[in-house]
Amino acid sequence: MTITITAFERSPDGGMGLARDTRVRWALEEAGQPYEVRPVSFAAMKEPAHLAVHPFGQIPTYEEGDLVLFESGAIILHIATRHPGLLPQDANARARAIAWMFAAVNTVEPPILEIVTAKFTEGDKPWSKDRMPLIADRIRHRLGQLATRLGDAEWLDGAFSAGDLMMVSVLLRTRPSGILNEFPSLAAYVVRGEARPAYKRAFAAQLAFNTAQPAAG
Amino acid sequence: MTITITAFERSPDGGMGLARDTRVRWALEEAGQPYEVRPVSFAAMKEPAHLAVHPFGQIPTYEEGDLVLFESGAIILHIATRHPGLLPQDANARARAIAWMFAAVNTVEPPILEIVTAKFTEGDKPWSKDRMPLIADRIRHRLGQLATRLGDAEWLDGAFSAGDLMMVSVLLRTRPSGILNEFPSLAAYVVRGEARPAYKRAFAAQLAFNTAQPAAG
Repeated sequence: MTITITAFERSPDGGMGLARDTRVRWALEEAGQPYEVRPVSFAAMKEPAHLAVHPFGQIPTYEEGDLVLFESGAIILHIATRHPGLLPQDANARARAIAWMFAAVNTVEPPILEIVTAKFTEGDKPWSKDRMPLIADRIRHRLGQLATRLGDAEWLDGAFSAGDLMMVSVLLRTRPSGILNEFPSLAAYVVRGEARPAYKRAFAAQLAFNTAQPAAG
Repeated sequence: MTITITAFERSPDGGMGLARDTRVRWALEEAGQPYEVRPVSFAAMKEPAHLAVHPFGQIPTYEEGDLVLFESGAIILHIATRHPGLLPQDANARARAIAWMFAAVNTVEPPILEIVTAKFTEGDKPWSKDRMPLIADRIRHRLGQLATRLGDAEWLDGAFSAGDLMMVSVLLRTRPSGILNEFPSLAAYVVRGEARPAYKRAFAAQLAFNTAQPAAG
């Protein structure tokens, strides 16, 4: 069955790979699964046809035969459950890898997304400039805890897993602010993720996709 | 094997059931699994012994024989995978239920937690009062989308699942602000969750736990 995912018609990052379709592309590449991409414009994301697929009007979504999924975490877990390469065989190790997936999206990503929220929805407010250092400190607090746990290990818990895929994807969002590079071991961890052939293929695909789309009319 | 979870020695909400151990207690009650609770003080949460179990120094954690887990989403998914009652048998329906778990913690909860962050870490800032309505509007935006999807259904996707358990748990956090009651269908959905015998047992257990602990010294 053909797998179809959705992505921004033109990603706000211009192809830096920070939009959430990249992490799903990466998982599909790790699993060796071909896929098609349906672009969605910002206008179309708010329309009933897309809301029927994604109730919160976001990307990515995942369609495979009768199955329609949203939420990148759920999509990646679905891929990881169906195909080898993204989750350990041992039941306990598998549960721990899934814990890192949830930690990435529920504990590490929220303070990182505060920067986006602050810029796009409160960028014109008088407190905008003074709040940024507070948000940055909250991100540093989380990254410091993560760096302590990672130590000098290659991946978070044994072999590379969907937990690392998600954590690297989330951490990538802290590179533009410079915060990632304040934590050399995490920066190196992200580079290890980016060096995986599957990531390289996913990144190249989203870049080609974003640069091939016509300018918004 | 004995299941042991951790909870706040004294929950900041005084037993309203909003701390994240309640959702894990609820899942264990739905699955019919007995469990023990180890209280953790705010001081102990920052110490190496607890950080070895939870790298971000939070509660709840889950221990069962050799398995140590953190992140309520991962813990509940682990329980739901091992025991009947929280996930559908059909593979596609199961993937969709898991999507609602991720949606609850990654899409609905972050704007809700902004209120907590704003109060506890920026409550003394000059912008504190002016920001609250903006945060409330971001929560309303998400709840409006969720109410549209729920419609007049009893649960989010067929029978009650771990997705509903997580979404109800997240929505409960919007009741003190009054925002939940602006969405009558969601308020009724939450009441349906609270009416489940398993929830009632979980709520009673956390209340008894919080009121039985000695005052912080």
